[in-house]
Amino acid sequence: MNYIDGGVCAAKGFKAAGIHCGIRKNKDKKDLSLIYSEAEASAAAVYTTNLVKGAPLVITKEHLSDGKAQAIICNSGNANTCNANGLEIADKTSKLCSKALNISEKDIVVASTGVIGLPLEIEPFEKGMPELVKSLSSDGSDSAAQGIMTTDTVKKEVAVEFELDGKICHIGGIAKGSGMIHPNMATMLVFITSDVSISSEMLQKALSGDIQNTFNMISIDGDTSTNDMVVVLANGLAGNSEINAEGESFNIFMKALNSVTVALCRKIAGDGEGATKLLECKVNNAKTLSDAKTVAKSVICSSLLKAAMFGADANWGRVLCAIGYSKAQVDVNKIDVYFKSCKGEILVCKNGAGVDFSEEKAKEILLENEILILVDLNDGEYSSCAWGCDLTYDYVKINGDYRT
Amino acid sequence: MNYIDGGVCAAKGFKAAGIHCGIRKNKDKKDLSLIYSEAEASAAAVYTTNLVKGAPLVITKEHLSDGKAQAIICNSGNANTCNANGLEIADKTSKLCSKALNISEKDIVVASTGVIGLPLEIEPFEKGMPELVKSLSSDGSDSAAQGIMTTDTVKKEVAVEFELDGKICHIGGIAKGSGMIHPNMATMLVFITSDVSISSEMLQKALSGDIQNTFNMISIDGDTSTNDMVVVLANGLAGNSEINAEGESFNIFMKALNSVTVALCRKIAGDGEGATKLLECKVNNAKTLSDAKTVAKSVICSSLLKAAMFGADANWGRVLCAIGYSKAQVDVNKIDVYFKSCKGEILVCKNGAGVDFSEEKAKEILLENEILILVDLNDGEYSSCAWGCDLTYDYVKINGDYRT
Repeated sequence: MNYIDGGVCAAKGFKAAGIHCGIRKNKDKKDLSLIYSEAEASAAAVYTTNLVKGAPLVITKEHLSDGKAQAIICNSGNANTCNANGLEIADKTSKLCSKALNISEKDIVVASTGVIGLPLEIEPFEKGMPELVKSLSSDGSDSAAQGIMTTDTVKKEVAVEFELDGKICHIGGIAKGSGMIHPNMATMLVFITSDVSISSEMLQKALSGDIQNTFNMISIDGDTSTNDMVVVLANGLAGNSEINAEGESFNIFMKALNSVTVALCRKIAGDGEGATKLLECKVNNAKTLSDAKTVAKSVICSSLLKAAMFGADANWGRVLCAIGYSKAQVDVNKIDVYFKSCKGEILVCKNGAGVDFSEEKAKEILLENEILILVDLNDGEYSSCAWGCDLTYDYVKINGDYRT
Repeated sequence: MNYIDGGVCAAKGFKAAGIHCGIRKNKDKKDLSLIYSEAEASAAAVYTTNLVKGAPLVITKEHLSDGKAQAIICNSGNANTCNANGLEIADKTSKLCSKALNISEKDIVVASTGVIGLPLEIEPFEKGMPELVKSLSSDGSDSAAQGIMTTDTVKKEVAVEFELDGKICHIGGIAKGSGMIHPNMATMLVFITSDVSISSEMLQKALSGDIQNTFNMISIDGDTSTNDMVVVLANGLAGNSEINAEGESFNIFMKALNSVTVALCRKIAGDGEGATKLLECKVNNAKTLSDAKTVAKSVICSSLLKAAMFGADANWGRVLCAIGYSKAQVDVNKIDVYFKSCKGEILVCKNGAGVDFSEEKAKEILLENEILILVDLNDGEYSSCAWGCDLTYDYVKINGDYRT
């Protein structure tokens, strides 16, 4: 399996585009993206568990009830959430898109991201749709990835190539992240495409299983968004025999999917609002998988640890503190903690107590922009990993006045 | 009932002191405090639920097993947590104090606050104990409150006077707060004294009941500390008939205690690390008390809302978002949200959707330093209140390099 270019257009039969249609005031920022498959595709999705849900999610859930879709339309700059006419706008957007692409309305996935509670007009969609459809291209993943960005500083794309039944297959994805990121069942916006032939049921099974260890293990700020969704379309154009049960082919697909989702997780966490560092917390030797996950997530979510990492301060007591309040079953006196980066690895806590270590070496390690916090619970055999970022002045700045 | 001066020395028979003994390098910062009752007192306490616990908590729990105490010794500058010899140091501190005061070791409450995992020596305690005991005075609450401060910018003291059985009674307290504040059963350090006569059992009942709606409803940063405790000593010198059951006297005591604890909560939240504003979230008309509390706490804990409040940005969508992921049972379409301060009140969301409001007026309200976020769920009759603070550049600064 190899990582390749092409994002959501790496898989056969997929085209994409992103344009500025006028939802945002800034004309230099794209605000409407489209992903289109030339063949109807198996579709699977997971959604935010927030009770306050964006109107597009309601429409999308309805459309995906048959496990099929052919296009994804997504705007940025407005979440279309807590709007009195939200459902009407999402429905009209879907109808406009269906007409322009000449496909069934039921095959359209609608998504929105941006400010909550801001009225959204249909006019920019009406105006932009012809240009958007005309712009669809097999190298359009880049502009589609741009069109869904909010406070993201970099676009997030990834794709892999692998073999199944002697056929060359692809899975690619784009994502937006940055703020209000604390997945629970699903998070942020992630659109994944594949040319693998797989039934809707098995595609949903693959996605639902995968996110437990990927998107659900990211946190930027502890806030679970109202509009998050992960959607996968698989159009079957690679020509493999359809995957319709568990087995070797399904496992190969799961592994390839996981390569895409983990890469997107790292991109999302590393580009968290205001972030200067990607934080990864790896927990080893936990009593249960649930304990491993709980500990990893708790460490990654600690505001105090996040601020310490921003300051490259090896304040490991905050790691212990976050483990202690996580509600995981741990034996505090067995915990070892290491900090690691490309500059090396350092043991800072052994058996739950501090050890002598070189503050200078620790500083050198923590000044890097990808930090691994390695927690060994020495109390079992389960592992987990969570991703987050540091807490910085810029996070406060970005969110102190997000709406202007 | 009146608020009065005097803090922990407002109640009859209590003396206090705070000195610099050398745990901190900065000689201008006090680092050791003592509270002493001339008579043995009923004692009740609640402790952090963090699995990683400061060594002093272990000693204190043991000493309070008989429901009696006479003195509280507390150092700042070092949490005495995750130290190999932590228990030994806490035990020696208790013994030194017991000897200097000529009271039973079992009557000593030991507490520590500061950096986790930093070795702590007994020498500063040995050196400082004679001076500390000599400094005990009935107007020493002020210096004792200073001696337990860490990143606190102001000392936190409060006291009330009330009548019981025709006797003048008092309850007073001091607290330290600032960071690693997200109570769960108990939080931070709070020392409360009273001259009321009350059994240990009823005192514990009063305290355990009260904290559910007071200290457990504060959050500065979502991090539950390892060293938190709330201790109440009641020495009976007011001369009322001992409270040993529920009834009118118990209710009067509970009300007075609540006046002290709520005032301390507001002081702790308003002086959160880096805070410029006290945030109070009042939730009305919830289906259950648990729903009301869950919603209030979720809103107060949202990093996104906290940053918006720092920027005086009326971004009410973040209030809705935090309610939505709180796991409370709410009907989103019934939710109203108001922002309120001494500059007035403004409705920003009605029935779960935005309303037209004056951004100028909202800004004026939110620029104040005490903000009330009023959430009406319109779905029941339960209310709750939570306290927190805004998220600021200074929070990041303070915690980016706490140890140096």
